[in-house]
Amino acid sequence: MAQVISDRRDIDFNLYEMFDIEALTAFDEFKDFDKKTFDMIINEAKKLAVKEMLPTYEDGDKIGVTYNGDGTVTTPDSFKKAHKLYIENEWTAPSSSEEWGGQGLPTTIGAASKEYFSGANWAMISYGSMGAGTGSMIEHFGTREQKDTYLKNLYTGKWGGTMLLTESDAGSELGRLTTTAVKNDDGTYSLSGGKIFITCGEHDLVDQIIHPVLARIEGEPEGIKGISIFIVPKYLVNKDGSLGERNDVFCTSVEHKHGIHGSATCTMALGSKNNCKGFLLGEENQGMKIMFRMMNGARMGTGLQALSYASTCYLYALNYARQRIQGKDLTDLGGPSVPIIQHPDVRRNLLTMKAYVEGMRSLIYFLFKNMDIARATDNEEDRAKANGLVELLTPIVKGYCAEVGYDVCVQAMQVYGGAGYCQDFPVEALTRDCKIVSIYEGTTGIQSMDLLARKVVMENGAIFKSYLKEMKIVISQAREIPSLVTLANDLDVSVDRMASLVMTMVKKMLSPEIKTGFAHSVPFLHIMGDVTMGWVHLWRAVVSTGKLENAKRKDVAFYQGQIKTAQFFITSMLPVTNGKIKSVETMCDAAVTMDDAAFGGL
Amino acid sequence: MAQVISDRRDIDFNLYEMFDIEALTAFDEFKDFDKKTFDMIINEAKKLAVKEMLPTYEDGDKIGVTYNGDGTVTTPDSFKKAHKLYIENEWTAPSSSEEWGGQGLPTTIGAASKEYFSGANWAMISYGSMGAGTGSMIEHFGTREQKDTYLKNLYTGKWGGTMLLTESDAGSELGRLTTTAVKNDDGTYSLSGGKIFITCGEHDLVDQIIHPVLARIEGEPEGIKGISIFIVPKYLVNKDGSLGERNDVFCTSVEHKHGIHGSATCTMALGSKNNCKGFLLGEENQGMKIMFRMMNGARMGTGLQALSYASTCYLYALNYARQRIQGKDLTDLGGPSVPIIQHPDVRRNLLTMKAYVEGMRSLIYFLFKNMDIARATDNEEDRAKANGLVELLTPIVKGYCAEVGYDVCVQAMQVYGGAGYCQDFPVEALTRDCKIVSIYEGTTGIQSMDLLARKVVMENGAIFKSYLKEMKIVISQAREIPSLVTLANDLDVSVDRMASLVMTMVKKMLSPEIKTGFAHSVPFLHIMGDVTMGWVHLWRAVVSTGKLENAKRKDVAFYQGQIKTAQFFITSMLPVTNGKIKSVETMCDAAVTMDDAAFGGL
Repeated sequence: MAQVISDRRDIDFNLYEMFDIEALTAFDEFKDFDKKTFDMIINEAKKLAVKEMLPTYEDGDKIGVTYNGDGTVTTPDSFKKAHKLYIENEWTAPSSSEEWGGQGLPTTIGAASKEYFSGANWAMISYGSMGAGTGSMIEHFGTREQKDTYLKNLYTGKWGGTMLLTESDAGSELGRLTTTAVKNDDGTYSLSGGKIFITCGEHDLVDQIIHPVLARIEGEPEGIKGISIFIVPKYLVNKDGSLGERNDVFCTSVEHKHGIHGSATCTMALGSKNNCKGFLLGEENQGMKIMFRMMNGARMGTGLQALSYASTCYLYALNYARQRIQGKDLTDLGGPSVPIIQHPDVRRNLLTMKAYVEGMRSLIYFLFKNMDIARATDNEEDRAKANGLVELLTPIVKGYCAEVGYDVCVQAMQVYGGAGYCQDFPVEALTRDCKIVSIYEGTTGIQSMDLLARKVVMENGAIFKSYLKEMKIVISQAREIPSLVTLANDLDVSVDRMASLVMTMVKKMLSPEIKTGFAHSVPFLHIMGDVTMGWVHLWRAVVSTGKLENAKRKDVAFYQGQIKTAQFFITSMLPVTNGKIKSVETMCDAAVTMDDAAFGGL
Repeated sequence: MAQVISDRRDIDFNLYEMFDIEALTAFDEFKDFDKKTFDMIINEAKKLAVKEMLPTYEDGDKIGVTYNGDGTVTTPDSFKKAHKLYIENEWTAPSSSEEWGGQGLPTTIGAASKEYFSGANWAMISYGSMGAGTGSMIEHFGTREQKDTYLKNLYTGKWGGTMLLTESDAGSELGRLTTTAVKNDDGTYSLSGGKIFITCGEHDLVDQIIHPVLARIEGEPEGIKGISIFIVPKYLVNKDGSLGERNDVFCTSVEHKHGIHGSATCTMALGSKNNCKGFLLGEENQGMKIMFRMMNGARMGTGLQALSYASTCYLYALNYARQRIQGKDLTDLGGPSVPIIQHPDVRRNLLTMKAYVEGMRSLIYFLFKNMDIARATDNEEDRAKANGLVELLTPIVKGYCAEVGYDVCVQAMQVYGGAGYCQDFPVEALTRDCKIVSIYEGTTGIQSMDLLARKVVMENGAIFKSYLKEMKIVISQAREIPSLVTLANDLDVSVDRMASLVMTMVKKMLSPEIKTGFAHSVPFLHIMGDVTMGWVHLWRAVVSTGKLENAKRKDVAFYQGQIKTAQFFITSMLPVTNGKIKSVETMCDAAVTMDDAAFGGL
């Protein structure tokens, strides 16, 4: 039977054949797990996602959430049971610490499971999952009392979490926020202000929601340096852990959006009755630093979200292409009509989608594996290296996967033709859903600036160099395999050109033409993403070539497919990347030097 | 005040400074017009579109059309008045022959006007405009009696038109259609079958709809060679022109779509009561040939539709970027927050959008100008050349503009950030609308096959060569201008590489590896589109450089903007095209040779 959401064979290939995730169980941190447990966990996730979450997807899109005018938000009925199963089966914080209610799983295994849930109905599962991010901040920066009060209920999904950052005049520029906090005599703070675009800000799936809120304590400096972060629970929590007084934080409306209709995107009012109580998390004026811990996790999660939409769309389109009869085979025009997968253009389209989906999967799992190493290892050098790679790759996972993930969804609609434009097939809604990924948690433009201004220059470029080294290792391995030498050489050229381009970019950014440098930051993000795709595809081809000789019959097509995909990506797509490199190298300044008026429209 | 929908200065630049449309008035065909009339017509279109059509856009998207269960379809209330004004002001067939109720305008002027209407509310105006396409077929292939019966009411918009081609198993492969026609003793035909995806198939804005229907006469051969085309009026027309008996052609449902919610996409049943009467148009088994006349017009119109969405989105985004304050200027981080148009990445994004919008406009106007020449000239050689260019460029106008037009819309959402994902701003709906353009009237894949298998090889490549010659003329002109020499040389390289690539492609398609050739047809379409953009931008720069010296103050920014845009496109974007050329040159066969099973998901 055709698979949906995610290709289990490819997940296993990543986990066990590329990244040797089983080796993680040698660490103390993961010693209670083994491959059998991992497999069982992913099986369970797949089963629950396909049987219980996927059937709620249409309700999420077509019914969506309803704001009731009284501060409450209703989710579709079918979400209730699915949410309950999600919580009961302990999927809300699979990789969080067991001490506080998480499952302690490697992040990589958590991610493999989450691919299924996100692809089935991201909007639905986020109500249960957001508490893990909120909890993570409290675990790392909260007092013992705060941990005792909130953490277990957040990790187990009994309570929901959010992140109250954005205001109508403070989106990409959080320093402009105007929500204020006044310290009370009892050490708590009174908050007042308004927030927008708050995912899961209010809903009917949990009794309690814990809001981390960015606000400026009265009298503290303007800009980001005067921002603190507060825990603002929907209900104050009594000493015995029971819910007390309703806090003065209310949803006043939900957005009507392009997609993710099942996700409540709330406008929140704090202190409209002058009675919003907040509890400082960490120290005063440390809000941005603390928030960024959660934000980084959110960005990686967003990359995974993009992969999930893309993977789901790819499998839908692939399945449709195998079944839909239309058109003659080009070499047998007098013959019968054939499934459209036999048409070269449809194949090119599907292979492009496959290359992106599988490439994203490897990139994301690679990042998560490094997170797992950083978490588990005692070796400081290994930890530093792993952490560095995670930091470097986060804007690529977020920014690049958002862009190419969306392209995959759009191309899935194209494979369906007219049917793809209709709401009868899920690809049209998934495409709308996927568009959010390039916008929230920092737009692609923001990611590209993070990559260029902060990440590639970290530790004088040492992290970037260790990333290049990872690539060169695979290139060397491929050069040992005659059938892959050409691909290895082609990739090597692109890697070297990219490395040299980084120098050009960095110089530009340190020059008076800094703006010209940043006018090429998104193209640069694409280049680094493309080259990364080339690298993981070559890696896949190296592994597959090695396995092919003794492969079981059912695996032969899979491994051959890996090699063909690498060939396709490096031969057909990397030349375009080289063109992008050439483009950025020229450092055209037209966008910067053009008069505002010359853009027209006046 | 900021312009909306379309940039009038750029329209005028195209009409009078690039394409000398005024010169058309020297032809007998257009002798009743002059520049003053043209200007007045476009002014009126703009006024009507902005004042009356644009305000109906939101209703179209949010209310949409309703199928009432009884064969009738209701459009939003606000459509009624706007439709009435559209008809009364004679906008339904501006370029159709005056003899039959059209306005006889040059197509180019009609297109300039239609940019405004389409950008304001394409779904609404199509109810009034579709009759022109139906009428065009009847004008060229109908009997005198058929013309007398239908034509005037179609061109004046009193009656609506459609095109009943697609069936659920016959989309891209029309030869599979199963709608049948049986000849009656009185020379009429009885039709039976079902059609899907019929734009404006049923609605409440007109009393009568004339359906051209593809069907197979009983006993005629399978495939496309046995297809005839019939006029199937919703109401039979009495001898005196009044409406008679209701014909047995009924709408049975409307599609719920990704976008264009205001457009009724109907499923139609013919002969469900065994009483559907059709009148043969032209001769038996000539249906495909006749239909293609309309289809070609529809494809050009679809390109214009893409331009309209993109232009509208660009101006919305540009206006937003000029007003939205967020973030510091990169060279003044301690200073005040600035409008986002000052951020280099936003500028790059806007300039990319501008380059595509204006490039599409020039490409489309160039095609329409050639249609006007072919229509007006007595010189056979000129006509043949103009017709050839129209034929060659139609799949590019349809296929390429659909792809890049959509990208522009998506990027407009990105400029708005989170706000762009919300339904409060029109860009999100316009983006959904625009997606249809790459799907209907032949998908991008179909356009690329038309371009490669039929168009570039027309007359042994002579048409393609005349298109290259047009490019070389502009390149020569640019080489005379010192500031443009580099751009001219860069473009020249791409033109030559594209020309050589065509040879490679054609050889491949005549070889046993024909499928490998077609696996690169869409990338080739993109290449030809990109190079065409480079050409029209260089042309714009040549004209603008000439004008700049004596330009009025308010025009200086416009002309400088043209030159900067050309610099940007040729320096920053054409290198990527060169990468695409390199990619296609390698003729990677992975997509073709890969096992079906290797695509995964099984």
